[in-house]
Amino acid sequence: MEAVNVGIIGLGNVGMGTLAILAENAGQIGLKLGFPLRVTAVCSRHVSDKTLPEGMGSVLKTTDWRDVVAHPEVDVVAELVGGTGVAREIIDAAIQHRKSVVTANKELMALCGAEIWDRAIAAGINLAMEASVAGGIPIHSVLREGISGDRVTALYGILNGTSNFILTEIEKHGAPFADVLEEAQRLGYAETDPSADVDGYDARSKLAILAALAFGEKITPSDIYTEGIRRIQPIDFQYAHQLGHTIRLVCAAHQSSSGLILSVRPALIPQSTILASVQGAYNAVWVKGKYGADTFYYGRGAGSEPTGVAVVSDLMRVAREIRAGSPERVSPFAHERLGEYKPIPVTLQMSAYYLRFRVEDQPGIIAKLSRVLANKQISLEAVLQLPSENCHDRPFVITVEPASEQSIREAVAEMSTNDFLVEPPLAMPMEKSL
Amino acid sequence: MEAVNVGIIGLGNVGMGTLAILAENAGQIGLKLGFPLRVTAVCSRHVSDKTLPEGMGSVLKTTDWRDVVAHPEVDVVAELVGGTGVAREIIDAAIQHRKSVVTANKELMALCGAEIWDRAIAAGINLAMEASVAGGIPIHSVLREGISGDRVTALYGILNGTSNFILTEIEKHGAPFADVLEEAQRLGYAETDPSADVDGYDARSKLAILAALAFGEKITPSDIYTEGIRRIQPIDFQYAHQLGHTIRLVCAAHQSSSGLILSVRPALIPQSTILASVQGAYNAVWVKGKYGADTFYYGRGAGSEPTGVAVVSDLMRVAREIRAGSPERVSPFAHERLGEYKPIPVTLQMSAYYLRFRVEDQPGIIAKLSRVLANKQISLEAVLQLPSENCHDRPFVITVEPASEQSIREAVAEMSTNDFLVEPPLAMPMEKSL
Repeated sequence: MEAVNVGIIGLGNVGMGTLAILAENAGQIGLKLGFPLRVTAVCSRHVSDKTLPEGMGSVLKTTDWRDVVAHPEVDVVAELVGGTGVAREIIDAAIQHRKSVVTANKELMALCGAEIWDRAIAAGINLAMEASVAGGIPIHSVLREGISGDRVTALYGILNGTSNFILTEIEKHGAPFADVLEEAQRLGYAETDPSADVDGYDARSKLAILAALAFGEKITPSDIYTEGIRRIQPIDFQYAHQLGHTIRLVCAAHQSSSGLILSVRPALIPQSTILASVQGAYNAVWVKGKYGADTFYYGRGAGSEPTGVAVVSDLMRVAREIRAGSPERVSPFAHERLGEYKPIPVTLQMSAYYLRFRVEDQPGIIAKLSRVLANKQISLEAVLQLPSENCHDRPFVITVEPASEQSIREAVAEMSTNDFLVEPPLAMPMEKSL
Repeated sequence: MEAVNVGIIGLGNVGMGTLAILAENAGQIGLKLGFPLRVTAVCSRHVSDKTLPEGMGSVLKTTDWRDVVAHPEVDVVAELVGGTGVAREIIDAAIQHRKSVVTANKELMALCGAEIWDRAIAAGINLAMEASVAGGIPIHSVLREGISGDRVTALYGILNGTSNFILTEIEKHGAPFADVLEEAQRLGYAETDPSADVDGYDARSKLAILAALAFGEKITPSDIYTEGIRRIQPIDFQYAHQLGHTIRLVCAAHQSSSGLILSVRPALIPQSTILASVQGAYNAVWVKGKYGADTFYYGRGAGSEPTGVAVVSDLMRVAREIRAGSPERVSPFAHERLGEYKPIPVTLQMSAYYLRFRVEDQPGIIAKLSRVLANKQISLEAVLQLPSENCHDRPFVITVEPASEQSIREAVAEMSTNDFLVEPPLAMPMEKSL
């Protein structure tokens, strides 16, 4: 059967990984499909510096993405540029040229995936975005097809490899955040400007996409409560362990009785849960279904070849559809149709909390803090204090029974007015139900 | 768009779970597909005793599966009977009537999946079998589509929930195998005749299917070396823990330099690996890919609703293909085409081993056993003996450095001739590379 022709725009890490797999694994890919996948055109700003893998045959190399999109032979365009600027132009132009599209672009798909999908359906082409979230984990495929008969009730993810690397290094070595971040930057795990990773924005885009797919709701990324990991200290892991927990940057989307609550924030999770065993730069997604109960998916979050596998698998999926003459018909976003549970503010969330205090020691501190909690109807569960050499900076912890995020915020604000506090209390939910 | 009509044959646990989900979740299924899935006919030997969920509309209830297969409106037949007898007849007849087929039948698909798939392709219909392995985990979907661009190099599974329940109960409570089995039978986790589960045959069928899919090889289940868990004792977990490991019934398929080695057997796995955190009746699959590295999938292994999710998701997949007019074209078995690595005997496997001995104490035992190992060029790594009250039955352990399964078997046979042994040594591989 005739080859399906691929054009690749963007030859960074993921683009080069994709090309390498398409070249090296061409035989097996052809056997799995029943026809070859052929790379017809590639585009990069620095295309002349790029060495394509051997055995690709004749490939158009261009610096102008329009050459790829308009190429008469190209059936599928892989958009591997990223960002929301030119990437959007590329995808729009590809759809206009009735080319199918594979993208690895989390930011763009989180912002306007539903809209892009609707345009793709109207144009009768195919669209795929496995590589946009958790590169090495085929979580889209799972949510769209593997467990499509189920009804998702909750989804928890560790979706930023850099943050998870930093947290598990702090946990293992007891080193402070700043030192571990520097180490991560040296190793190439963190960017020079680490904000997107350590402040949670990268994870937020990914959660927006997964939650849209899982719950059939329109999710606006900026509506998701997002808090990064900069305040987490080695002492927090010591306290968490004492409580039988560990700390991860948790992306959570779950149904409560009143709606869908979304957040990206550091949280305590039980050490006995399989999510707690996710170490280093790995990603994981935990899905709770009404019928299928718990399923869990784990793999590399990023990297040239793991993400390349996602792009190549998507190209294969789209190529199958093209050969079957079967365009997209129903958007996996399907917003405003599937959803029974509208997003509601995170302040309505009920959870147990961990509150960590750094204080200048003086008598009556616990009494003062407990009074604030009592006034907000928050029940204190335990007070923990690990031995410390330095009595002037003695972090201690109060855990409280399930309370609303709103009441916790009010309590934290009120506590913060006390001048014995060196910094505002650090509040983290304890995800005991995992 | 017009409904796709489903006929369900077999109303046991899985059949009833499937019906319940199709009824309860009908709205969401229809929105995801863009058309309804309608149950048109059901068949069971005891169909008059079965209460169908409400709101299914008019459904033909019959005791003769031929009525379902020949029903003019039925587009897809779900074969949920199991076994290799009438189930085979049903699938053959459905293909003959050009009906698509969804099956949960591991035994039949392990024995003749490739052949059935080829017939389905020739007939131009669709076939799906997600529910046949690890009910709650969409592992077929992952191997066929999610990571189809990768090249699998190894696959490890915990694929029998009953065995895993028994092993983790022995681990937690230190109770002997027989007591835990009885408890599992009482709870309904184990059959009255537990052989298929505890002797590894159920897991073997599942491994045969997954390995065929992952490696593109024809796998004959009876060729897979299979050993059950009956000999595992609480003391083995104590020794395993001392070695930083635990014990699971591991289904393994991995490439060595000379070929593909398959086995189902109890093995020591590092406690730090995520596979070790699989507790109770859960299943898990660990896939190593040449490009995508490690991915891991976890969920319920069985149960009416988790397996029902797999059947319903398959019905949705097949229904999409039917509406797109897109029949199966390439078999996921694809045997004798993809495979570069033929199955080779397990005796060629190189591994570290754990050898546990129960002896009548007498001087010189270790010396005698070490001499046997030395004669086979097997390097001893450690000798472990936990304190025991009873000096007449003192199990101890020798671990050895990587050696061939063949040399270990010969050593075990030679050791077994010593009359100080109460029983033949128990040998288990240590999967240190996990």
